[in-house]
Parts: sequence; structure tokens; C-alpha cells
Amino acid sequence: MADEKPHCKVILSNKIADTLLSEIHSGLAPLPRKPLLVGFLSSTDPAARVYAEWTSKTATANGFAFQLRTVDREELEDALLTANTDDAVDGIIVYYPIFGNRQDQYLQQIVAVDKDVEGLSHQYIFNMYQNVRFLDPAMTKKSILPCTPLAVIKILEYLRIYNTILPYGNRLHGRTVTVINRSEVVGRPLAALLANDGACVYSVDIEDVQQFTRGEGLRKRRHEVVEKPGWTLENCLPISDVVISGVPGDKYKVPLNLLREGAVCINFSSERNFAPEVKEKASIYVPAIGKVTIVVLLRNLLRIVQNKIDAKAEADKSTPSEAAQTAA
Amino acid sequence: MADEKPHCKVILSNKIADTLLSEIHSGLAPLPRKPLLVGFLSSTDPAARVYAEWTSKTATANGFAFQLRTVDREELEDALLTANTDDAVDGIIVYYPIFGNRQDQYLQQIVAVDKDVEGLSHQYIFNMYQNVRFLDPAMTKKSILPCTPLAVIKILEYLRIYNTILPYGNRLHGRTVTVINRSEVVGRPLAALLANDGACVYSVDIEDVQQFTRGEGLRKRRHEVVEKPGWTLENCLPISDVVISGVPGDKYKVPLNLLREGAVCINFSSERNFAPEVKEKASIYVPAIGKVTIVVLLRNLLRIVQNKIDAKAEADKSTPSEAAQTAA
Repeated sequence: MADEKPHCKVILSNKIADTLLSEIHSGLAPLPRKPLLVGFLSSTDPAARVYAEWTSKTATANGFAFQLRTVDREELEDALLTANTDDAVDGIIVYYPIFGNRQDQYLQQIVAVDKDVEGLSHQYIFNMYQNVRFLDPAMTKKSILPCTPLAVIKILEYLRIYNTILPYGNRLHGRTVTVINRSEVVGRPLAALLANDGACVYSVDIEDVQQFTRGEGLRKRRHEVVEKPGWTLENCLPISDVVISGVPGDKYKVPLNLLREGAVCINFSSERNFAPEVKEKASIYVPAIGKVTIVVLLRNLLRIVQNKIDAKAEADKSTPSEAAQTAA
Repeated sequence: MADEKPHCKVILSNKIADTLLSEIHSGLAPLPRKPLLVGFLSSTDPAARVYAEWTSKTATANGFAFQLRTVDREELEDALLTANTDDAVDGIIVYYPIFGNRQDQYLQQIVAVDKDVEGLSHQYIFNMYQNVRFLDPAMTKKSILPCTPLAVIKILEYLRIYNTILPYGNRLHGRTVTVINRSEVVGRPLAALLANDGACVYSVDIEDVQQFTRGEGLRKRRHEVVEKPGWTLENCLPISDVVISGVPGDKYKVPLNLLREGAVCINFSSERNFAPEVKEKASIYVPAIGKVTIVVLLRNLLRIVQNKIDAKAEADKSTPSEAAQTAA
């Protein structure tokens, strides 16, 4: 029996993005007008300008209106407040870094919650960590999730790592995932999201390993975090079905010798964290996720617009009866 | 945060059987007549009679014709040879045990290959172990698989353990499965089938543990078997996503403390190999598979009939040109 080439399915993010885009197109069809996304560019980082151009191109190509507003960073706060109250503006994106310090986080909280397509408002982040999935008690309006972690979730759904035979909210039960990166922007929220969906997650950074789970039989309503003293990738990788890596810089490579045979490997770093030999052992490899991230941003915008239309419809329904009460 | 009840989805085999039955019903619709399944009862085992009645009921309720022929065991060979050449008979099932020794295996090979709905003919078994999936070089006629192992495969497909994003034939890549039972009838063929589909399988019996895989990156065309000296369930269970147990008798229980959190557990023994507490830890639990097995038998019968119709259509196509050649 002759040896053959290894079997690894390499999935490019544009293929996954296209699937999400067709959902978005059907969502856009019934809307009265194109949703308007406004981007604020106050950053001097060339990567921010590239990202702005990329947002513009993807938004306008897919049925959204887009305006780029280049604003001196000292005037950004006022510009945001104006956009917050402008009914013509449906969604706001700000290109970071601007000050490159905690003032950037302050600015993130200036964006109106109901225009925050990036999902960075404290209310959304709080909901995410607390595993609160809806904005309203009737559970009709889904909360907004930060774009990059949500892009990874959407990729895992596309790859059928989410098992739809299990109930919504528990579809990663039985999956073990290693996330290499524990930044506040991507790695930690991603670990929390995956654990809230039922996975056992090893969150790895240069300091240590933490385990995020909902406990045996998913008894907890949301994830809990346990330190794993002495653990390294040598402990996590051989037992992980899915390995998600987002280490910045071109130096870092995931040690492939530790991978489980047939693991699913996803890279969200702008550099390649997996050497090409990952295909010798992985069952599925997703080398980059950028195109999905930007589509997920548009999906968030669509959701925000839909939530607003639903809220208005409900308000209109209740108004006549209020008027009747006032008249009585 | 209060503890809640564990989350385990218990899936009964009739639900899975119903899905397969609706596929069978659409396959039956275009056929010129009801396929006829003939059951031969020469066994004195009361379980064999129960199984015969159950086949009869399921077959006739789902659009098949069924005849039970009760035959003295010394006359069974002749009765089978008669049925083999009777065009009215589409499928044959023999209820074992009859002699309870190797003569039963001899009788299994008497049944015509193109009427063997149980998939016990040497040709089918050989194809299965060799990972040969079709009967013809054009790959239009799928080989027949033995019913109980095939039932487990169909259950794993229903449970989305087979990942349809991966190519056909590799859809268990990355899955680790423990099969407790290595009988020639179920356990060994099942381990081979799962490994041929890309899984890493630990085949466990009272003697030892064997690993069935297609090697790193699924480079091999079919599975290979490696002994795991010194291994027991203590090594296999904690690393297995799926645990399939079929130990006869009511004494045996799978040691639940060794299960991986969120494992998928399937019992194919007539007794319960998993204690009810399996639900504390498993993500999915299938307590019995009998109803799927019998539906898979009908599915095999349908396939046999379809293969025969296709073969006849091809023969009819080639006949005129042969006639033309003879005339020329």
C-alpha cells in the first residue's frame, strides 16, 4: 500500500466570507434604505488607512453606504458625539490606534451603543463575558459581539465544529480548543465565547495557561477560569481538537510536533503562526481570517439596523394605546 | 452563579431510524414493484423469532414485501439455493444462530451476493476491510456493509460526528473513537470502517487494545492496525471523543470516571453498557441502536434492488449494438 499525500483541507477566508455575505444580502433586501456606515480616521498608522479603504470597498460592494471622515484626533470626540445623534448614521467605526494609550479605550466608549458595529462598548463586552446573548428580556434582539472573536466563531460554525445537533449555546460541548493569545481585544473574549458555547478552552499566553469551561456537564451558566500552574503548550496541544493562534510578529510558530493528528488549525495573526507543514497533520487549516472579520462588521451593522427597526415598530404599536389613554 | 442540571442530549434510535426511513421511502417510490425480502427461520433461539417478527413488521410497514420461511435446518442450504435463483426474491435474511458453530458461517456464504442484505458475503466483508467502496470500476454501485456496523456509522452521521466539510471518505479525520468489543460480527468491522473514514480508533477487548488508523495525515489508503501493549481503557477513554460499547451481558459497565467531558456515547449491546450517570458527563448519549439496524437492513435491500435495475439498464443499452454486430 503506497503512501499518498497528506489530506488537509485548506479553507480560505473569502470562501467563508461569501457564505456570510449571501446571508447579509438577504437581510439587506427588505430594508427601506442602504445602511450608512461612517468611518473615523484620526490615526497616523498606515495600517489604519489600509483597513479604512478595505472597509469602504467591502461595504459599498455589498449594498451598504460608507463615508470616511478624516478628523484631527483632538476633534474626534466631538465628531463622534455629532454622529451619535445623527439619524442618517447607522453605524460608526473608529480606526485605532489613535493616542495609543488608555485614551483610545475612553474613545471606544464614546461611540453610541446602538451604532457600535465593532462591539466594543462596555455593555456588549459585559454581555459577552456574562453569556448574556440578548439585549431585551423578550430575547428578540441579539447582543453585538466584537468583530475578530465573532469572525472566529463564524469560521468554526462554517467548519461544522459547532455541532447543530446540540442545542444553541452548547454546540461546542466536548470540543477542546487551544487559543494562543490572551489580548483583551481578541484572545480573552474569544476564549470566553468558546467556553460559553460549551468548549473546554486552554487560553495560552507567554506567562501561563488558563482553562475556561462551564464545568462538568456544562452545569454553569457561563464560563469560569481556572489557572493551570506549570502548564504549557506541551500539555494543551496534544489534547486539542482545534488550535487558534494569533501571536503578532513573524517570529512565532506553533510547535507542530505537539499537534493532535487531524486538528483544526486557524490563524488570526496578520503573520503566519503555522508553518506550511501544518498540512501534514491538520484536517482543516484556515491560514487567515481578515475577510471574515470585515464581513462580520457589516453583519453587526445589519443587526443594529434591524434591532432599531424592530424597536421602532414596537414603539409605534404602543403609541396609539398611549394616545388613547391620554385622551381618556 | 447557581449550578444547573447537566446538559446531555439523549437521542433515541427511533428518531434516527425515521430520518433514514424517509430517505428509503423516496428511493422506493420509483420502483416498479415492492422489493421482496425473504427471511429464513431455522433457529430454535427465541431471540431469532423475535428478530424475524420485528423484520416483518418494519419491512411491511415501510413499503417492502416480506415472507418468513420456516425451514428445518438440514434443508436450509437447499432452500437458500432455490431462493438465490428465484427472480421474485430480492433479498434474503437468515436468522442465526442455527448450528451455533462454523457451519453458520458456511451458510452465510451460501446466500447469493446480490441478495445478501446483511452484508455478510465474503466479497462485501473483503471490500469493507480493504476500503473498496464500490462494486464496479465506474463507481456507481456502492458495496453493501454489514448492518450493525453500518447502523453505528449512520448514527454518527446523524450526530454530525462525520464532518461534511471534509471530503467523502475522510470525514472522521481528527476524531478519536474507542470501540469496546472486537467481535468479527460488529466490533472489528466497525473499528475498520471508522478508521477507513479517517478516525483514530482504539479497539478494546478483554485481551488487549489495538489502534486502527490511516496514519498521519491519512496518508494510507486504508486502515492499519497497531498493537498497544499495556494499554487499557484508562489510556483510551480520556482521549476519546466518541465511545461505542457493545459488551454482551448485564454485568459490564463502561467506567464513567474515565470519560472525556462532553464525549459522545453509543451503546450497541442489548444490555445497557453505560450507567444512567453517563448523562452527567456526555454531550450526546444513544442508549440503543436496534431500530436503526433494522432500517439499515431495508436500506441495503433497496440498494441491492437499485444496483440490479441499473445493471439491467446498462445491459439493455449494450444489447442492441451487440445484435447489430451479430447481424453485420
